Amino acid sequence: MADEVSLLDFWPSMFGMRVRVTLAEKGIKYEYKEEDLRHKSDLLLKMNPVHKKIPVLIHNGKSVCESLVIVQYIDEVWKDKSPLLPSDPYQRAQARFWADFIDKKIYEPGRKLWATKGEEQGAAKKEFLDIFKILEGELGDKPYFGGETFGFVDVSLITFYCWFYVYETFGKFSFEAECPKILPWAKRCIQKESVAKTLPDQKKVYEFVLEMKKMFGLD
Amino acid sequence: MADEVSLLDFWPSMFGMRVRVTLAEKGIKYEYKEEDLRHKSDLLLKMNPVHKKIPVLIHNGKSVCESLVIVQYIDEVWKDKSPLLPSDPYQRAQARFWADFIDKKIYEPGRKLWATKGEEQGAAKKEFLDIFKILEGELGDKPYFGGETFGFVDVSLITFYCWFYVYETFGKFSFEAECPKILPWAKRCIQKESVAKTLPDQKKVYEFVLEMKKMFGLD
Repeated sequence: MADEVSLLDFWPSMFGMRVRVTLAEKGIKYEYKEEDLRHKSDLLLKMNPVHKKIPVLIHNGKSVCESLVIVQYIDEVWKDKSPLLPSDPYQRAQARFWADFIDKKIYEPGRKLWATKGEEQGAAKKEFLDIFKILEGELGDKPYFGGETFGFVDVSLITFYCWFYVYETFGKFSFEAECPKILPWAKRCIQKESVAKTLPDQKKVYEFVLEMKKMFGLD
Repeated sequence: MADEVSLLDFWPSMFGMRVRVTLAEKGIKYEYKEEDLRHKSDLLLKMNPVHKKIPVLIHNGKSVCESLVIVQYIDEVWKDKSPLLPSDPYQRAQARFWADFIDKKIYEPGRKLWATKGEEQGAAKKEFLDIFKILEGELGDKPYFGGETFGFVDVSLITFYCWFYVYETFGKFSFEAECPKILPWAKRCIQKESVAKTLPDQKKVYEFVLEMKKMFGLD
């Protein structure tokens, strides 16, 4: 049976992009279904009744939810091409630790950089940069987080790259000055076709954020 | 080389207990090191510099942090006895999804049941019971979350059982009335020696909470 794969997603989602990068890395053909998050489709509500969130992968009629769970699932099912998790259990545990760290720590202070002001924004900026400095320390002088090849931690983090212009503009800082190792790492990742073709332009994400700010009265 | 395994932990931690249950299931001998969380040991700060939290597994000198990452690590290294993750990738994705759900959703409203009052406590109680009803729906008529055998999702959830008396007493509800399937499931799990020997008595946890409330002026 040929695999039937579809993805319920929303274009600026860094979580959804993780799945798109992974599918591209593996060379998996799939149907992309854009969701309107203000009017979620019946399919989304049926396929992810617990969280009602994108991304949702539907593989031969069965759904997998939560981006890091989906990436691991794809890596296990399509295991012959571009393995993302290392084969050594200790290295795999480290990869899961850092992907979980990224998953829990970046989104919320990142959101506050553009959605809040004053003290709240200031605290978020400190938190956000502290997290990136920890990540920079973990990266060290390696080309990728797992070492020589693009892997699970890179997939988890690189999708935030298309939001960097938003973070820098509203947060009034520069990644180059604050975390000098992160940009060369990001540029290394973006050389990969799977990443380059998936991530939208930073200015397009910025336009989207301006729209959202207008919509939610956050000007 | 014989495996050297030690665990930095704190006895009432439902996260630490997950690791203890897993080590017991696998029959792994280890040194248990109780941490005083108000005066964290140099070893803890060195072995988990990012989160500075228990539990930390130290295996032949190398640390693994975050309870669900540790449980998966143990399951992968000591894979011959009592496998906890299913072998099928789809089932494994489902197990990861539910363990993650438990990990993110129960602790905080559970804490608010005993640490807050009034409206905040009321909202936490609703949230807490809603989560358990979702879990009950997922359990359905299966003996364990993964089916016929005790597995990853069971390990993730059962350690909250020793806090049930705390939750029920301060939250003024009964699991038996609210989620009738959860108690028989818990009693099935507690039949397992790995669980029975790990989980402290519910009244001992209650005494601990009374102490904490006194210490933090929450009476």
